[in-house]
Amino acid sequence: MTEKEVLEFIMRRRSVRKFTGEPVPKEKLEVLLKAAMAAPSARNRQPWEFLVLTEREKIREVCTAHPYAKFGVDAGAVIIPLGKPAGNFYFFQDMAAAVENLLLAAANLGLGATWCGMDEKRQDAIHPLLGVPQDYWIFAVIPVGVPAEHPEPRTQYDPAKVHWQRFGQHL
Amino acid sequence: MTEKEVLEFIMRRRSVRKFTGEPVPKEKLEVLLKAAMAAPSARNRQPWEFLVLTEREKIREVCTAHPYAKFGVDAGAVIIPLGKPAGNFYFFQDMAAAVENLLLAAANLGLGATWCGMDEKRQDAIHPLLGVPQDYWIFAVIPVGVPAEHPEPRTQYDPAKVHWQRFGQHL
Repeated sequence: MTEKEVLEFIMRRRSVRKFTGEPVPKEKLEVLLKAAMAAPSARNRQPWEFLVLTEREKIREVCTAHPYAKFGVDAGAVIIPLGKPAGNFYFFQDMAAAVENLLLAAANLGLGATWCGMDEKRQDAIHPLLGVPQDYWIFAVIPVGVPAEHPEPRTQYDPAKVHWQRFGQHL
Repeated sequence: MTEKEVLEFIMRRRSVRKFTGEPVPKEKLEVLLKAAMAAPSARNRQPWEFLVLTEREKIREVCTAHPYAKFGVDAGAVIIPLGKPAGNFYFFQDMAAAVENLLLAAANLGLGATWCGMDEKRQDAIHPLLGVPQDYWIFAVIPVGVPAEHPEPRTQYDPAKVHWQRFGQHL
């Protein structure tokens, strides 16, 4: 692929928080999950699992329990990556790589999505709603839907953040 | 894009550990960095910086100091994402999303790369080689080069890892 095509694919991913309310076909959700599970992981442990919600009431319940996911009540689906972090230093990194794959796939299929992060407090609020075993960490809440807004692709490239050959040496 | 095209883009990323020894043009390295910096981050803090090595001796020094990066001595470049984790719970997630973007861009530009993870012990070995301030965490060592091996694209999709509507319910 050309450099332009590659960057377009990557930069097409933007956070989308407005949805038409239309459903997302199960086949498309499976493409997103295939993309996610193609991510690299330390020692190829693939620590990820995914809970997929498409039922309106459950979507509403989970999105309103997260301080920054309320926009998700109109999403066609919510994908919740989760797994067991115990004894795995690379758990959060591996999960994040899978999520980034998922978001890139969504954007390039014409879907909108936003990665809503999960800290300890949000964990306590959302864990009980999902009936997930205690040893699982809910990594994110990701509303996915047909977009009703279309943010422009953009890089955030900043040459001041690139050191060449040694720390502090910029071009 | 079609589902097939999207999955091809994502699945083209495989760990590549054999390189021809050819250099990687600076312009291509900048495309990788643009891809990395297009990643999402919590509160858009963009905690990432990148140290790029293209000098043979430095590449050798860093790659041989990492227990699983010795293959990188033949890479045309080594990209080292780093940043300040203090007070940022999402640091590792944000860094990982940027790295995944970088790896996807590399694969789709015809380059090979492998994400070599960094734990505390590897930190101690590599930190002094790079002259990086103490409050920085070296997130990864990523040899990048012209590939001398071409692993097949593959998904690792596993339906047993997908829960539909509620935990434990598989299709």
